[in-house]
Amino acid sequence: MYRTHNCGELRIGDVGKTVTLSGWVQKARDKGFMMWIDLRDRFGITQLIFDENSSSKELLEAARSVGREWVIRIEGEVIERSSKNDKIPTGEVEIKVAKLDVLNASKVPPFTVEDDTDGGDDLRMKYRYLDLRRTPVRENLFFRSRLAIETRKYLSGNDFIEVETPNLIKSTPEGARDFVVPSRLNPGQFYALPQSPQTFKQILMVAGFEKYFQIVKCFRDEDLRADRQPEFTQIDCEMSFVTQEDILNTFEGLTKHVFKTLKGIELPDFPRMNYDEAMKRYGIDKPDLRFGMEFVELNDIIKSQSKGFGVFESAELVVGICAKGVTSDYSRKKIDKLTDWVKRPQIGAKGLVYVKFEEDGSIKSPIGKFYNDDDLRAWGELYGAEKGDMLLILSGELDKTRKQMGELRLEMGRNLGLMKEGDFKPLWVIDFPLLEWDEESERFHAMHHPFTSPKKEHVEMMLNGDHETMKSLRADAYDLVINGSEIGGGSIRIHDRALQSKNFKLLGFTPEEAEAQFGFLLGAFEYGAPPHGGIAFGFDRLCAVMNGQSSIRDFIAFPKNNTGRDMMIDAPSPIHDEQYEELYLESTVKDEAEV
Amino acid sequence: MYRTHNCGELRIGDVGKTVTLSGWVQKARDKGFMMWIDLRDRFGITQLIFDENSSSKELLEAARSVGREWVIRIEGEVIERSSKNDKIPTGEVEIKVAKLDVLNASKVPPFTVEDDTDGGDDLRMKYRYLDLRRTPVRENLFFRSRLAIETRKYLSGNDFIEVETPNLIKSTPEGARDFVVPSRLNPGQFYALPQSPQTFKQILMVAGFEKYFQIVKCFRDEDLRADRQPEFTQIDCEMSFVTQEDILNTFEGLTKHVFKTLKGIELPDFPRMNYDEAMKRYGIDKPDLRFGMEFVELNDIIKSQSKGFGVFESAELVVGICAKGVTSDYSRKKIDKLTDWVKRPQIGAKGLVYVKFEEDGSIKSPIGKFYNDDDLRAWGELYGAEKGDMLLILSGELDKTRKQMGELRLEMGRNLGLMKEGDFKPLWVIDFPLLEWDEESERFHAMHHPFTSPKKEHVEMMLNGDHETMKSLRADAYDLVINGSEIGGGSIRIHDRALQSKNFKLLGFTPEEAEAQFGFLLGAFEYGAPPHGGIAFGFDRLCAVMNGQSSIRDFIAFPKNNTGRDMMIDAPSPIHDEQYEELYLESTVKDEAEV
Repeated sequence: MYRTHNCGELRIGDVGKTVTLSGWVQKARDKGFMMWIDLRDRFGITQLIFDENSSSKELLEAARSVGREWVIRIEGEVIERSSKNDKIPTGEVEIKVAKLDVLNASKVPPFTVEDDTDGGDDLRMKYRYLDLRRTPVRENLFFRSRLAIETRKYLSGNDFIEVETPNLIKSTPEGARDFVVPSRLNPGQFYALPQSPQTFKQILMVAGFEKYFQIVKCFRDEDLRADRQPEFTQIDCEMSFVTQEDILNTFEGLTKHVFKTLKGIELPDFPRMNYDEAMKRYGIDKPDLRFGMEFVELNDIIKSQSKGFGVFESAELVVGICAKGVTSDYSRKKIDKLTDWVKRPQIGAKGLVYVKFEEDGSIKSPIGKFYNDDDLRAWGELYGAEKGDMLLILSGELDKTRKQMGELRLEMGRNLGLMKEGDFKPLWVIDFPLLEWDEESERFHAMHHPFTSPKKEHVEMMLNGDHETMKSLRADAYDLVINGSEIGGGSIRIHDRALQSKNFKLLGFTPEEAEAQFGFLLGAFEYGAPPHGGIAFGFDRLCAVMNGQSSIRDFIAFPKNNTGRDMMIDAPSPIHDEQYEELYLESTVKDEAEV
Repeated sequence: MYRTHNCGELRIGDVGKTVTLSGWVQKARDKGFMMWIDLRDRFGITQLIFDENSSSKELLEAARSVGREWVIRIEGEVIERSSKNDKIPTGEVEIKVAKLDVLNASKVPPFTVEDDTDGGDDLRMKYRYLDLRRTPVRENLFFRSRLAIETRKYLSGNDFIEVETPNLIKSTPEGARDFVVPSRLNPGQFYALPQSPQTFKQILMVAGFEKYFQIVKCFRDEDLRADRQPEFTQIDCEMSFVTQEDILNTFEGLTKHVFKTLKGIELPDFPRMNYDEAMKRYGIDKPDLRFGMEFVELNDIIKSQSKGFGVFESAELVVGICAKGVTSDYSRKKIDKLTDWVKRPQIGAKGLVYVKFEEDGSIKSPIGKFYNDDDLRAWGELYGAEKGDMLLILSGELDKTRKQMGELRLEMGRNLGLMKEGDFKPLWVIDFPLLEWDEESERFHAMHHPFTSPKKEHVEMMLNGDHETMKSLRADAYDLVINGSEIGGGSIRIHDRALQSKNFKLLGFTPEEAEAQFGFLLGAFEYGAPPHGGIAFGFDRLCAVMNGQSSIRDFIAFPKNNTGRDMMIDAPSPIHDEQYEELYLESTVKDEAEV
């Protein structure tokens, strides 16, 4: 037997009991005549005590021989501590050890296994088993486990059935790039790993399951950026005989449930904003509502003032935000830095105009030669600007400028500490465009995905409208945003074969391509497909956002690095010649690799 | 709005209410002046009524236009039925329809969507969305969903943490064949899909998680036999600081829990049998204990009788079973058929000897010229044979003969109807051999897997014994068997680097191969790996066995056929040239395929 108790459960009421504990040596303190070991397991830490008077020489030697992270088993008596520790639940007792067995030794870990570690990212990933011993990392994964439990509890309680959809499916060129899996039994053919169970969950609706969910791994072979993983997890759902309203209510309920049960936070009803409004007010389809600093457009006032400042007067959009009470903090140097920031290629603005309403009543702005104080004061009124406030203004082409200003607003939010920890601001963004025109490839892309339905009142326009009309189609598509992170999104789907065929055509599929790739779904729509819609939440993202963290990697037990590599197991790796042969494949880099 | 109620919830107390229902047309009956439609959704069936007197002409026409599996929405009043149907919960009411909307039409399904269908396997798989509408198939998947819920409830309640392990891992030649996934970002390198999360769950033990579980998809690229799927689901578990006893008790508890909550069956404590005994008594490591018919070996009595029947006297094993009360049923012709059955290449016996103890007291046997009635009666006594019983005897090489007799015993069990529906007989088979000698390849294979620990008392033998000794090593390895099906298995693992290295060596790994494939695990064992062990249950199999069914395919939403093909989506399929290029691959069958 390895234990009668775990290391987190002994209390003052257990004094006098003989117990067996097993765990890891967190640390040891040796005072010569006395010695203590902190013994750690998943459940807590219990202090062990050895002393020269009552412990045998062999026992003391054994205790002195163990090092950090050794695994030991001890037997002993629970006694009351002379100096109690009120920081841990077991702090009133310690174990007077009678017997100690070393279950496994440990080398000295390459980094400290403490809440704060001195290990760099690469080292932590290579020795992930040591990193996972650290309380904050373990707590992240325990949180993830509880989030899955509460999600399942809520959805099961609402009549959702969890159905496992297959992982070996069919490669389709639409959307992101697939990971593919060569089939040995079907020479020259490949499976694909699912980017999402989209078509299968729709098939389940045709099958009459009505309320489906799955917490499911999905795969995308994209170039990896920070915080993007080749495999990730979704809370995937689909419902039949529902409107957008039903779906929003159900998943607002889920979100409230997990915040309440796991964070003790009662979220008020979620506001809703349509896509066009989000773009106009925040320049982004996932606004962070923890702070205001909304866009105010200046085109009208600039036109009315007509001062000959061509940059503004000829711009499709002149838009600004107002930072409150910052003028004393924003020196010329700091503003220059901010200007450099917006001019970086990632943002791409040509310049930044500021208007400072100084505390002393003066107004400072680099465009003072075009606009006098009264002009600028009139601008300020549009923002409700007061002394100490500063306007930041960008101008240019509409969509680009909004995007740039959206980035600047977030940067200012960060700089001014407006994104408060523990503050959660959910938002439904609704009424997304159905199609997005891509200038480069001269074709439409599906804004959500090719199965999304136009709004009922736009169906006729979609079936019979001209090319320009297609750009104005709006969909019953929606995203849940929390604190500027997209937690999930979904849509009401097309359930009619003709409309789905039309959508494929708009997206550039030939009828043959549509049939080859999605024939099964088009076929299914002919056998009594109910109206349906759904949503998917990014599970990793939800974990991170609920804990106020930005990286999903810390909520994944074994994440991959930016080249898709698992540093611990060292995968991917070369395969054997026989494997190539069995799969009817040859490598075009193999010879080089072997030289 | 599509519904105020579902089709399973209206009762006599709802009479008078105006309701909206949506669903599928199960069937329609038209009496001319009156018409009924059975409207079906996931929750049940509700009868709709239309009549010439009170329904408008348009409404009647609309009702007459709909066919089987059309999707409609109706509004109407709940009324009491004149002729009640006590077979369905809604049978006391019907809806007097005021409004009918067709939500989607349906072609005539290619097979009947009823409990018993006329659709063949291929057709059912191609139109899986229609097959899944059938109550028995849907009930299977709903059962599966509930089984997952109860499994998670039990394990979470016992402090297990669910952790998702990665799906893109490393290919290893040990065990079954891997599915591999070419990595675009790492030219010439491949991921593998996990055959099980074995090494990751052991890493989680090294990480101090102590109690891990996961309901997880696993993948094996094996030649498919009936009832084997390339992707399947496991209940995967691992525990630290435990002995075999702890694991057996925990998972016996899980099994009892799911039988009780889902089937209302209280299983008594599970018997245990060691591997050697199972082979001796049943000729198989997964005996079906729903019936007896245990082996009795005849070598001793045959030696003592010494009658010159060389076939028996020179055989390594002579073994028989006793079928009770069957002599009148087993004519010479039927026994000949049984003899042909054991001589089939799949079984491989050379012949079958019977001894019939007829009701009239006579004894019939083809070996009567060697053995007189007294001799045979002495044999019968070993079985407790009575009048009407029949011995069936095989002889030959020990292991082969046991296996043949094991098959014959099961065949007799089937023939005599001894495997009763609703009878569940679980059994722990324990003390499996550690290693299995393969004559063909002249090497050891791991009986369970390469991470299994020998029994504590065999460690010394393993480290220092000779080649022959290795064959007698026993492991703390165990299988849970129910009704002759292996539900799952596991073992106590090695947690010591030296012992694990020795095991790899015995299994034919060079130190370099062991390091390349499992270096991370060997490394982890050096940083305080706790004693640990685990188990995995086949989730699909457990679903099937709990429902008295033999095929796992009926419990998988979208199964693949025997060539690994998804008939509905038609996968696997060819990929594009660009995909090959991006993955640094060429096909060796591609040109032929394109000709």
